[in-house]
Formats: sequence, structure tokens, C-alpha cells
Amino acid sequence: MAAKRARVLLQGGAVITVISPSLEPELEKFWEQKKVNWKKKFFEPDDLEGAFMAVVATNDPSVILSVPHPTSGLPLVNSAGEASRGNVQFPAFLTRGKLTLAVSTSGASPMLTSQIKEELENRFESDYEGYVDFLYECRQLIKNSLLTKQEKRQFLHELLDESFMNEEKQQQTILWLKKLAAGG
Amino acid sequence: MAAKRARVLLQGGAVITVISPSLEPELEKFWEQKKVNWKKKFFEPDDLEGAFMAVVATNDPSVILSVPHPTSGLPLVNSAGEASRGNVQFPAFLTRGKLTLAVSTSGASPMLTSQIKEELENRFESDYEGYVDFLYECRQLIKNSLLTKQEKRQFLHELLDESFMNEEKQQQTILWLKKLAAGG
Repeated sequence: MAAKRARVLLQGGAVITVISPSLEPELEKFWEQKKVNWKKKFFEPDDLEGAFMAVVATNDPSVILSVPHPTSGLPLVNSAGEASRGNVQFPAFLTRGKLTLAVSTSGASPMLTSQIKEELENRFESDYEGYVDFLYECRQLIKNSLLTKQEKRQFLHELLDESFMNEEKQQQTILWLKKLAAGG
Repeated sequence: MAAKRARVLLQGGAVITVISPSLEPELEKFWEQKKVNWKKKFFEPDDLEGAFMAVVATNDPSVILSVPHPTSGLPLVNSAGEASRGNVQFPAFLTRGKLTLAVSTSGASPMLTSQIKEELENRFESDYEGYVDFLYECRQLIKNSLLTKQEKRQFLHELLDESFMNEEKQQQTILWLKKLAAGG
């Protein structure tokens, strides 16, 4: 759970310090890559001084209870195990390359959050990663083409047709657009 | 568009200054309610001094072009009309009370983003607002009950059944849980 949070926060550009006597493998890798700092010790409330946000990701009740209760000031507190103990909740994320879907129930029902996330995982399968990359490339080519504004819109719209999920069709389209851009 | 961005950023706790000779009605309301500051003037690059993020929400090309190109430093730039001109993209949000779904294609395809958002709007209709509030209330009652941990999990899981979207069934369940809490 701690590594999962760290991954999301690193994407957002956070400066992270992990306070723990030991690190699980993924966090250790982050530390070796200098992506996170590590205070190799048991947690004490003073460790939060100057922090913007505290993420509580442990099963140890004594640690959970020693984290100050969220106030209106800093640090913001996210409680990984029990959302309602904190004042910041993380959404569940689903990523398919450039496509990101996020689900949050503001702590009302972690089970519903998981269920919706699963539903979206089945709806937006892994082929969306390539499809959205394809849309991105087409968009650049179309934007730089000499088509009229209306034609550009029309083309971009047509690419939303399900048939373009097909990889072969994607490659043909890119080739065609490159010719169009070169020839136009 | 400017008001839409302001609404999302205010939810996130941002301190907002609008730079514009005039305000549209929704922004004017925010200003009257002291939710945003307002510099009543045309935009100049110096207005960005000290800003963390600049949101470009205008159709005026001369303003769009006078906003400094995003660099690796501050301010971050969000371009409401043309995502690829900025280095921050806002997701499309769908809210149903405590339920929030966010969709982003990182600027690859604003049209796909809109299409997915519409699909989710149809899938998660407005009755989800009451349903998630219901789940929240049940969760508090169940947590404070004397049920065993396993029974709690079991109950919370059962509430995900579609039949609980029915308002009458929701009211009956709350009554029943209140009796259980009082009696337990």
C-alpha cells in the first residue's frame, strides 16, 4: 500500500520521505533510484514537522494511533487503511497509457470504488493504451496538415469509431496521414 | 470555461486571481462571494509573477500568445482551449454527490475524453448520488455496531447489490441498521 501511494505521489511530483525501520522491495527500489528519502526508524510525531501531507500506510495500530488527528492545518493526513481517519482520500486509478480514469467515493464506500474500478478495467481493456497513442499521433499529423478546420474536426471525430481499435487499421491510417501531411 | 476551471480549482483549495477586464456571471458570483480575487485589467506577462499555475481560458489569440511557453519551472500552464499548449491537463469530471469519476487522455484526444465522460454519465446516472450517500450512512452505522468484523464486511458487500439503488429499500435498510445499532 505504501509503495502504491508513493507511485501515485511521485507522478504528481511530490518529494517523499518514508519513515520505517524497513522497506518493502518496491519502495527499496525507489530509494535506490533516489526517488524517495528514507528515515530508517520507527515513526514519531515529530517526523511530520514541515510536512505537507502524511500518508499512513501501516497495519501497526500503535503507529496509526500516534499520527495526529487531522486538523484544518497541515499536514494533510491520508490514511491508507481507513479513509475516514484522514482528511485526504486517494482515488482509485486505472491507467491505459495516456488514458487515465480515476474513481473516488470520498471514503463513503471503498468497496464500491473497487467495484467501479473493476468494471472500468473490463470496459477499457489494455488495447486502449495503443489506441490512445494512435489518436495522439493522428492529432499531431492532422493539426499540422493543410486541411480546413472543419475537415480536421471531421477526421478527428471519425477516429473515434470502434473500428480504429484495430492495430492494422491504425498503422494504415498513420501511413495515409503522413502521406497527406507530406503531400499537402 | 474560466468559471469551470475556477470551480474545480476552488474545490482543491486553490487561491485564485482572475485577470480580465470583465467577468462572466458565474465568475462574478465567485468574486462577490470573495472566493476569487479579480484584477480588472488586460493580461500582461508580469501578472504571473509568483503564481503556481496559470490557466489560459480565453479566445483572444493575442492573450493566448502572450502567456509564456511552459518551461520546467513555475508557473505550470494549463491551456483550456488547446491542452497541448500547456504542461498541465485537467481531467473531465463527473460528480454524483460523493462519487467522482475523472477521465483524462493527457491531451491526446479531447474528443475521446468527452465521449468516455458521456458514456460514464449514462452508466452512472443521477440516482448514484443518493445511493453513495446511503452507502456512507450504512458504513457509519455498521462500523459502530457490535457485529463481528466478518459480519461487517459481509453486510457492506451485500449493499453493493443493484437492488439497493431503490430508495425505498434504502430507507428500510437504514431503519433496520439503526435498530441494530441501538439494540446491539
